[in-house]
Amino acid sequence: MPRSKKQGHKVVFEPAGRRGTVGDGETIREASRKLGVPIEGICGDKGSCGKCRVRIKSNRGALSEVNDAERKLLSARQRRGGYRLACQTRIHGDIVVFVPEESRVAKQVVRKAATERAIELKPAVKRYYVELTPATLEDALGDWERLKGELGSRFSLTDLTVDYRVLENLQEVVRKGDWKVTVWVWMGTEVIRVEPGLRDRGYGLAVDIGTTTVAGYLCDLAGGEVAATESGFNPQAEYGEDVMSRISYTMNNRDGLKNLNRAIIKTINLIAGRAAAKARGRRKDIVDMAVVGNTCMHHLFLNMHPGYLGRVPFAPAVHHSLNIKARDLGLRISPGAYVHVLPIEAGFVGADNVGVLIAEEPYNQDDIVLIIDVGTNGELILGNRKRLLSSSCATGPAFEGASIRHGLRDAPGAIEKVEIDPGTGEVRFKVIGKDAWNSELEDVGATGICGSGIIDATAQMFRAGIVDRSGRFNKELETPRLRENEGEKEFVIARADETSTGEDIVVCQGDVRNVQLGKGALYAGAKSMMRHLGVEKVDRVILAGAFGSYIDRESAAVIGLFPDCPLDKVYAVGNAAGDGARIALLNIDKRAEADEMARRIEYMELTVEPGFNKTFTRSLWFPHMDDDFPSLKDLLPA
Amino acid sequence: MPRSKKQGHKVVFEPAGRRGTVGDGETIREASRKLGVPIEGICGDKGSCGKCRVRIKSNRGALSEVNDAERKLLSARQRRGGYRLACQTRIHGDIVVFVPEESRVAKQVVRKAATERAIELKPAVKRYYVELTPATLEDALGDWERLKGELGSRFSLTDLTVDYRVLENLQEVVRKGDWKVTVWVWMGTEVIRVEPGLRDRGYGLAVDIGTTTVAGYLCDLAGGEVAATESGFNPQAEYGEDVMSRISYTMNNRDGLKNLNRAIIKTINLIAGRAAAKARGRRKDIVDMAVVGNTCMHHLFLNMHPGYLGRVPFAPAVHHSLNIKARDLGLRISPGAYVHVLPIEAGFVGADNVGVLIAEEPYNQDDIVLIIDVGTNGELILGNRKRLLSSSCATGPAFEGASIRHGLRDAPGAIEKVEIDPGTGEVRFKVIGKDAWNSELEDVGATGICGSGIIDATAQMFRAGIVDRSGRFNKELETPRLRENEGEKEFVIARADETSTGEDIVVCQGDVRNVQLGKGALYAGAKSMMRHLGVEKVDRVILAGAFGSYIDRESAAVIGLFPDCPLDKVYAVGNAAGDGARIALLNIDKRAEADEMARRIEYMELTVEPGFNKTFTRSLWFPHMDDDFPSLKDLLPA
Repeated sequence: MPRSKKQGHKVVFEPAGRRGTVGDGETIREASRKLGVPIEGICGDKGSCGKCRVRIKSNRGALSEVNDAERKLLSARQRRGGYRLACQTRIHGDIVVFVPEESRVAKQVVRKAATERAIELKPAVKRYYVELTPATLEDALGDWERLKGELGSRFSLTDLTVDYRVLENLQEVVRKGDWKVTVWVWMGTEVIRVEPGLRDRGYGLAVDIGTTTVAGYLCDLAGGEVAATESGFNPQAEYGEDVMSRISYTMNNRDGLKNLNRAIIKTINLIAGRAAAKARGRRKDIVDMAVVGNTCMHHLFLNMHPGYLGRVPFAPAVHHSLNIKARDLGLRISPGAYVHVLPIEAGFVGADNVGVLIAEEPYNQDDIVLIIDVGTNGELILGNRKRLLSSSCATGPAFEGASIRHGLRDAPGAIEKVEIDPGTGEVRFKVIGKDAWNSELEDVGATGICGSGIIDATAQMFRAGIVDRSGRFNKELETPRLRENEGEKEFVIARADETSTGEDIVVCQGDVRNVQLGKGALYAGAKSMMRHLGVEKVDRVILAGAFGSYIDRESAAVIGLFPDCPLDKVYAVGNAAGDGARIALLNIDKRAEADEMARRIEYMELTVEPGFNKTFTRSLWFPHMDDDFPSLKDLLPA
Repeated sequence: MPRSKKQGHKVVFEPAGRRGTVGDGETIREASRKLGVPIEGICGDKGSCGKCRVRIKSNRGALSEVNDAERKLLSARQRRGGYRLACQTRIHGDIVVFVPEESRVAKQVVRKAATERAIELKPAVKRYYVELTPATLEDALGDWERLKGELGSRFSLTDLTVDYRVLENLQEVVRKGDWKVTVWVWMGTEVIRVEPGLRDRGYGLAVDIGTTTVAGYLCDLAGGEVAATESGFNPQAEYGEDVMSRISYTMNNRDGLKNLNRAIIKTINLIAGRAAAKARGRRKDIVDMAVVGNTCMHHLFLNMHPGYLGRVPFAPAVHHSLNIKARDLGLRISPGAYVHVLPIEAGFVGADNVGVLIAEEPYNQDDIVLIIDVGTNGELILGNRKRLLSSSCATGPAFEGASIRHGLRDAPGAIEKVEIDPGTGEVRFKVIGKDAWNSELEDVGATGICGSGIIDATAQMFRAGIVDRSGRFNKELETPRLRENEGEKEFVIARADETSTGEDIVVCQGDVRNVQLGKGALYAGAKSMMRHLGVEKVDRVILAGAFGSYIDRESAAVIGLFPDCPLDKVYAVGNAAGDGARIALLNIDKRAEADEMARRIEYMELTVEPGFNKTFTRSLWFPHMDDDFPSLKDLLPA
């Protein structure tokens, strides 16, 4: 390197306004991480997903030359407009970078709200108020023995132990409260918090660690109600968007596990603090926590290496539920508090699925219930009170808006609903953040298509004859919206004047194929499970997960996301995993139930199922190559 | 302060050779702390104990002027020789300081050796070797469930839990050992360590935290034998030599508790590391720990404020024994290990006394046993299998060599044995570190008198008629060794040519008074307890504590350290508190016994006992004002 070369370069990120100095040769992505500007990305900086597009606003010449990856993923027009891939572009001078809306991570809409559910209150942590007799020369018993005696005689709490952190400060607390204290007891066995005087503020936090989003539900332990909901982006996404890329990050980087663990712990601490503040409390007022997440999130949260989850035989470190001191995990809630981590079912069916299980209770039903939890991974539960199966399948990221040409995650501007007139081929759509359909708006400002939008679009294209049962574009159809681009058919959903990017938003043949792969995996999984269970049909379908709440059940049924089921028996239940965490937080019997059911449910490893590939291939068709769909007879094309 | 004044001064400490720069106006004591040169001291830098004498070797003029405290505690000759009190002398220029042997803390002899005792082996932590069936696709159970199942079926260990730190690394350990592991289980309930393959190294550490000395006994948990003994100076002594001065340090300094807690934890970590290294192991191989100490040491070790122990009603934070994760205390042994802290009896009778209790088992005797544990504080146990009393009394520091004109702690050069010829008044003595009596040595090199020496000297002076029953010097006696100094009588034990200080070593009237105060407190305590218990005499006297092993029982009996007892029924048992820690480490039944006995023993608060002052006054006499001593009839002067 020439000695005269400047070593530090000034970088400004717009519109965030973050600025700082980075070393010569660092990529824009590295700079964005340093300066705290989260940029989308799913491929682990390999230049293969094209999600980290940024626009250079000044000094384009101070960058590395456009490389092959960028030529492949950026159109000529984009390149002329100054677009680059942040992960591929190295900085050799002062620059100003604009991060377009679709590349911004923080803009995402958090769709994980707590569902209204009646939960019987039986929390692990209970509050007691105690007035002690002050010590005297004649009765100089230790403070702890004094407190223990009183809790025993007044509340029949016997054989109590005390957390060390409580004991450490007990003398001061007792005297500060003039021998009157509020005591929090965990599971009737251990004193985990003592506060001076009479206090009534005590919370539990239910946490759902999603691959993408982390949601926290702060519940009042006295009444059970949700006192505050707080969510945040899972910052691990910076290191890899899906589970597999995070696993490979931990395998390829010495500090990989540590980085991912610290990132999630820090985020939960932030969420806990913000939720407590919303309820006018402090983080220290949180005396209990229940956590769900898929097995990878579960392992990363617990600082256990997820590497073994990613290879045969996919064995996890632990199946059972765990009670761990929050402080041992670095969580800064009440120092004596425990975290209850729900059990997992198998290497690919995690505590989030157990959360769904105790929220939906298929084990208490006579109906055969199929539960589909579509996140970045697809998880299936099938059965009733007699027998329950679970399985997991790789749906691909299509339903999260990734691997789709103009795919986006749930974000303002993303197309979430699509209708196509079978006669005219005309398109109506709705974008997130606007109250009206496109035709009623002056400034539509669509930025891409999210998961529910892509399912709608595919179903509508199928019903309008734009694609056939096998997913192929109809070459005979003549409509200006159907066109060919570099040899690939594509259908225009939003015209350039309706988008904020100034380009048409299309669904191309490749997008349809990716939807088919995703829905085919779910259908084939359900089919294999039905065969295993010996049932011909399902009585009820439950769509769980944040995505499930926004999906149009008619569209989902039409493309064949699941086997035939009367549409009035298809329900969306929202974030059932988060609900499960909340249920476990508030009711210890449900914790026991979760442990029992996690063991009783039978995990099916679909990849080793005989004939699975054939089942899968036939499931790629809309809605299926052979199966009958009596419930859809008015919806499917002739 | 004049602006031209230099702000940093170079200070050299000899003979340690430590050097560094200190700020203008800092005391020599502050400088010594910074540079890690421990200097004696007991008064908390108030200039009242005179223990921190140092000699200035160069640039005496660069120091603050000799003040009143120094004039009082340093003789004119010492002052001329360049002696100063380190805590009183401020530095205003570069100096060289010599720390004489008697002022050096590190030179102390550690007299806490483990006593040979047969201990039935029933440790809290046991080892198991397990070979697991590797996980397969058909059997992808979690690693922990796999291990738990094997421990259950092979060793009938059911309902096992696992420490989080073990779980965190379980996958790696299991695979590193090729599915063969060594497991350490605590109390048959919790897996606290898992190592790859077959391992046989596993230790427990018994720790006796003395006010002055910390002793660690590393025991092999498989065989029970002591694998290594390591001791160290308790670094808290830097902040105050006795319990009360440490308590006031914590009350007067914001970080006082933190400093004292960190100091002891750091020392135990050092001792643990050194002991493990001696046994060719690592600190992580220590999987269990048992700790004793007086209540103040107990509280400081647990980071609990000792302030309440020092004032009415002297209530401790906790009485019961505790099992605390070593990591929660900052102890760097095996991360999953527990520390068992023995129970305490009362505000002034600590876990060290409970250690003595389970080591000596007076509760299994028919004889009435009196146990005297003389440390900086005196603790008494009296009784038998029917009933047991304990009490505590302030003996003053005389028996530790403090508050005595030429008093020293156990250190090379300290006079530990004294004989006076009643006819000639001639003196023979022995110093620590020499094999022969003074008369047989060319270079005697006495530096002062330690506790056993002062008891010997007092008893011999009494028997030789140099002092009378009331402790007064006999003014009639004519011997060159008895003289008057500034109006106070003193008796020369070692002549200047036998000392390394070049001055006579004497016992003065004030020294005798201090011995009387100490022995009177013990005697009066024992007397009050006997009255309380309704017994006329004791059948056995046990002298416990490091000091107790070196004391001459005849001398102790002659001055009346305890009520009459046949001399062949007076035993020294060494460091029984440390033995108790070792016993508790190796036998869980004895832990339970300790808990039971600590509760069963009745604590007597002597200060509120009616008539105690009268009893005390009468106990000041040698051996007592009124009592009969049939066992001593040949030893007492007519």
